[in-house]
Amino acid sequence: MVSGPSIRGLCLLGAFMSAPLINAQEQPPLYLMPVPASVQIGTGRLLVDSKFSVASTGYTEPRLDRAIERFLLQLSRQTAIPLSRRSGNSSKANLVIHTDHAGKEIQELGEDESYHLEVTTTGAKLSAPTPLGTLHGLETFLQLVEVSPDGFAAPAVTINDKPRFPWRGLMIDSARHFVPLDVLKRNIDGLEAVKMNVFHWHLSENQGFRVESKKFPKLHEAGSDGLYYTQEEVHDLLEYARERGIRVVPEFDVPGHSTAWFVGYPELASGPGPYEIERKWGVFDPAFDPTNERTYKFLDQFLAEMAKLFPDHFFHVGGDEVNGKQWDANPKIQEFIKAHGLKNNQGLQSYFNKRLEPIVSKHGKIMVGWDEVLDPTLPKDIVIQSWRGPDSLAAAAKQGFRGILSNGYYLDLGWSAARHYAVDPLSGAAANLASEEKARILGGESCMWAEYINPENIDSRIWPRNAAIAERLWSPLEVTDPASMHARMEALANRLEWLGLTHKSYHRQMLQRIAGPSTPEEFAALTTLASLVEPVKEYTREQFATAEPTSATPLNRVVDAVPLESATARRFGELVDKFLRASCHDLAADARLRAQLTAWRENDAKLQPLVQRSFLVKEVSATSGDLATLAAVGLAAMDFLTKGQRPPEDWKAEQLPILEQIHKPKGQLLLMPTPAVEKLVEAASAGGACPSPN
Amino acid sequence: MVSGPSIRGLCLLGAFMSAPLINAQEQPPLYLMPVPASVQIGTGRLLVDSKFSVASTGYTEPRLDRAIERFLLQLSRQTAIPLSRRSGNSSKANLVIHTDHAGKEIQELGEDESYHLEVTTTGAKLSAPTPLGTLHGLETFLQLVEVSPDGFAAPAVTINDKPRFPWRGLMIDSARHFVPLDVLKRNIDGLEAVKMNVFHWHLSENQGFRVESKKFPKLHEAGSDGLYYTQEEVHDLLEYARERGIRVVPEFDVPGHSTAWFVGYPELASGPGPYEIERKWGVFDPAFDPTNERTYKFLDQFLAEMAKLFPDHFFHVGGDEVNGKQWDANPKIQEFIKAHGLKNNQGLQSYFNKRLEPIVSKHGKIMVGWDEVLDPTLPKDIVIQSWRGPDSLAAAAKQGFRGILSNGYYLDLGWSAARHYAVDPLSGAAANLASEEKARILGGESCMWAEYINPENIDSRIWPRNAAIAERLWSPLEVTDPASMHARMEALANRLEWLGLTHKSYHRQMLQRIAGPSTPEEFAALTTLASLVEPVKEYTREQFATAEPTSATPLNRVVDAVPLESATARRFGELVDKFLRASCHDLAADARLRAQLTAWRENDAKLQPLVQRSFLVKEVSATSGDLATLAAVGLAAMDFLTKGQRPPEDWKAEQLPILEQIHKPKGQLLLMPTPAVEKLVEAASAGGACPSPN
Repeated sequence: MVSGPSIRGLCLLGAFMSAPLINAQEQPPLYLMPVPASVQIGTGRLLVDSKFSVASTGYTEPRLDRAIERFLLQLSRQTAIPLSRRSGNSSKANLVIHTDHAGKEIQELGEDESYHLEVTTTGAKLSAPTPLGTLHGLETFLQLVEVSPDGFAAPAVTINDKPRFPWRGLMIDSARHFVPLDVLKRNIDGLEAVKMNVFHWHLSENQGFRVESKKFPKLHEAGSDGLYYTQEEVHDLLEYARERGIRVVPEFDVPGHSTAWFVGYPELASGPGPYEIERKWGVFDPAFDPTNERTYKFLDQFLAEMAKLFPDHFFHVGGDEVNGKQWDANPKIQEFIKAHGLKNNQGLQSYFNKRLEPIVSKHGKIMVGWDEVLDPTLPKDIVIQSWRGPDSLAAAAKQGFRGILSNGYYLDLGWSAARHYAVDPLSGAAANLASEEKARILGGESCMWAEYINPENIDSRIWPRNAAIAERLWSPLEVTDPASMHARMEALANRLEWLGLTHKSYHRQMLQRIAGPSTPEEFAALTTLASLVEPVKEYTREQFATAEPTSATPLNRVVDAVPLESATARRFGELVDKFLRASCHDLAADARLRAQLTAWRENDAKLQPLVQRSFLVKEVSATSGDLATLAAVGLAAMDFLTKGQRPPEDWKAEQLPILEQIHKPKGQLLLMPTPAVEKLVEAASAGGACPSPN
Repeated sequence: MVSGPSIRGLCLLGAFMSAPLINAQEQPPLYLMPVPASVQIGTGRLLVDSKFSVASTGYTEPRLDRAIERFLLQLSRQTAIPLSRRSGNSSKANLVIHTDHAGKEIQELGEDESYHLEVTTTGAKLSAPTPLGTLHGLETFLQLVEVSPDGFAAPAVTINDKPRFPWRGLMIDSARHFVPLDVLKRNIDGLEAVKMNVFHWHLSENQGFRVESKKFPKLHEAGSDGLYYTQEEVHDLLEYARERGIRVVPEFDVPGHSTAWFVGYPELASGPGPYEIERKWGVFDPAFDPTNERTYKFLDQFLAEMAKLFPDHFFHVGGDEVNGKQWDANPKIQEFIKAHGLKNNQGLQSYFNKRLEPIVSKHGKIMVGWDEVLDPTLPKDIVIQSWRGPDSLAAAAKQGFRGILSNGYYLDLGWSAARHYAVDPLSGAAANLASEEKARILGGESCMWAEYINPENIDSRIWPRNAAIAERLWSPLEVTDPASMHARMEALANRLEWLGLTHKSYHRQMLQRIAGPSTPEEFAALTTLASLVEPVKEYTREQFATAEPTSATPLNRVVDAVPLESATARRFGELVDKFLRASCHDLAADARLRAQLTAWRENDAKLQPLVQRSFLVKEVSATSGDLATLAAVGLAAMDFLTKGQRPPEDWKAEQLPILEQIHKPKGQLLLMPTPAVEKLVEAASAGGACPSPN
């Protein structure tokens, strides 16, 4: 009988609600992420001890052998049980892996990624048509193994799984801030863990050109401050990704976002030059000159080199955010627009794309570009990556273009995981497409833009929230419950650390730098405050900056050190809701809320010695004061609520300006429990809703 | 005016007590470890911002250039300020480094390691006779830079520094458990940070032979399970250490501790064989046959190879713990003993050493061995490493032998940092040596034996306690205050993380594995319990084991995950002492003790869900129950004390068996706050000592 996985908060797990659970009491909950297409829970567990062995049958290739080695290494890390590969006797092995046939030599969009995994108390079988399915199945097995009352074990389970969308990617901008190769690699390990299959590598920007070009060496020599990937390193990364079933789509952004190219090759630009590497953030004027034949000759030769370097069938040319100022300012270009009847700059960009596409195509690649490249007259095989949204994607699909969604998946905007999770590529206008149009919507990509990241905090900006997006793109449409997602995402966040990702460990180290030498009490006060704030959202950070940030600005402040989503504040909000839903009769919730609020009220006093000693703590002093005030307001509201007293007439009116003040960002930070305390104030003011439980 | 560093707990800082502080209020405390020979505090601070620059003058060599690069990288990590090397204009640089002349081509014992560092508000100057001093001075500068009210800064200060002992080392046993090269490297970074200058590399054991031998390949092929260092890797490590001013002394332990050699070469052993790699821990029978000329021929050829591979002038031949059983059982050997008038097995080992020493010497090395190699007839230039103690070292010094102390510095015994800190190479009988005899005591080495370590927890077994030993060996004799040491060691522990050491970060990850998916409250309960226990001390772990441990035993239990010293328990004990010294009138201490004890009393209930789910948590369930009981006893004692009530007649008699039961190790763990609670019980029973403060 097919049933849903026994997952924390499972009763809300959409897709599986109708089917009752079996053995729910005997089996531990499953913490699988993404949720498989189908899960059937069995009885008992398969123990993983030092005798655990793996054998493989069917098709084999070195990549599969190495995948089994990596699997055993990872299983060893998870359990700290020394494991090594045993001789492959499939009749005796605890896990038998069968792969049917080879995949494509160069991994392709839409290859079969399905797998079947069966775990019983005596052994496990994984089978898949292609190595890609095998890789996914191994990751699922790793997620099944957990500590149990008897040892490390995987629960008995039968899983049939395949992805909902064929294009599930993460884009990393390694141009605004350079991202070292080892940082990319550990993030690719993360992608494998959540079954994403595309790494979109944003390689050029106003702020840097990051790949060695042997044909045009001034690109990386003049445009990168020495921070670029050699072609050997690129090969290394491509191999690393292929081993993990991940395609690598390079992006070289043209005609805008291109200042760094012009440092070495000013003659390609639409303005006179000379150019320097851009140090600031924003949209800038420099753009390729689409009217100059040299541009196309250059791009032809450049693409010839890069098309060979990057084997993937798709090639991303950017195409976004050309502000047109250099084009406006150049009389020759304006003359060209008129002479060719191009209407305006948008027309000129279309012209550019129509010249560029055949070049991309000539070098054997399919062109990918951001929304702006869409032009009905371009060949229908190009792919639109939409930062504008599902409706824009639907419009493209109607015109016959394929698309991938990134609007709603920008990790740098600081959205909650739940908000990302609610964004579906087939929502909005896309939900009403005909099925053949829907099929053109290939999936999506999360995007990690790099204004405020460096090797120290980048993992924390990607993980674990990226797992929510990965699940959206893999799991059935009906899997939408945020509570289940949160529980599984937090378990996954712990697992991801075994891959060397630093999204959890970075935090204490950064706070320790901020605090300097401190007592445990002082440091705990900073940790408490940090656990309750988030950086300001969307692209408002500059708005609250005291000095214009540049690529040289140290990222050592509290705003750089805190996760983009406060789990503590989220849980506090959930507890307030629970308390109010129970008409304040939930004594356990009452006690926990009071304990938290009391600790928060007293936190600022404990932080003060650090405020005196560290300029980085001083910056959050106002927020720390706000927390004390907020907690006091919350405690007052709790008192009214639990005593069933209506507060004095003007109490609410007095609290609101206080809360409004607390709402304002300070030090580029938001104090996240504020809305939940507002709910308490509202409820208290409404009066009588929560009479004394006695 | 020369004065002591303004260090937390400074008034107790022995050496500097007599000189008053200047500017104590204006200057932040210094967190230098080891404490320099002389420190003079100035006024103000030198800011470190993104314009910070370094220049060097005088003698230069590539190693110094790279050291400055590493220094800037490290300064960048500490501050998160992007820093890179500026052009070396010494008149404008913020830090000017002057090195007088080259050091020895192969680093030698006793080279000048002194340096002079002067920091003012406008710049800093570091000067040293040799690159070794320069390296030390750069580490001191890094320790001076801290967050301040104005930014990152180093306080104005003048330091003249040099070591007390010329041999300051750490031994790592990479034979019982293999230690990967990157783990060794990060620990060598740690040695550099605390100014240790010897890495003693224990490379062979019953459980493994860890170096590639081209001459005798069966040594590593048959004796290592494939876990060995290639000669290329050895070169790499030696170069890494030399860059950091650290000598590498290899140890190949003969004639005992040698089972792994005999797996490939059974003909060298005193027993018949065949041999397998030893999997258990302890002292084992296999030993080289000292009566067989093949042994010396083999060792001669082997040493010829290894003496070339390892350039240091010293070569360690082990020599410890030969149990003599194979010698006893071999009639030919017993006959040899008689024929040569050797008295007994000890005599035979002396014979062996007298044959071995000329071989070591012939290959250009000075022999080092453990206590057992000491024989008055051996040449006086050999060095004795003493696991027996300072008296044994003093006796050797009187006979003219040089020595280094390791007794008291065994990191695997689980001693507190304070206990290691109190051990001085010139204590005991050594204190009364004549000065030329004292000079033969070269210093000491901490020892990290590897029965219970792996790459995951090894750093936590070495750091930060090793820093206390490093300070003992570097700083003036009079620097002995444990409170000051603790404050500085904790600050250092945070700093060491920037080197990639995992002594802090490993802990949460291991606990997360033990807990499995869990709520924040459950996990906090496990963290609280883990913060209050320590593994059983000395070599008693086997005594409390349920199954005989081997090299394949997973090190995934709470006993493997907790630090060897509980800082929380230490602080609790200090607070109890403070409370009792104040005759229970210290209200702040009272409140904090009650808060801690109350939380501990309630902790077990919060841990119970994990006890049900995880076999690894279940193992500490009894200790968790003990904590609840202990806390309840402590709270009862507090009540008597603060009310000034004498407890009922039989109260103490009832508590003592409870505490005795709690004292007993469970799950190989000790519950560390127990003695402090006993003090409260004793004080309460004495009665009347702590009347109500009202």
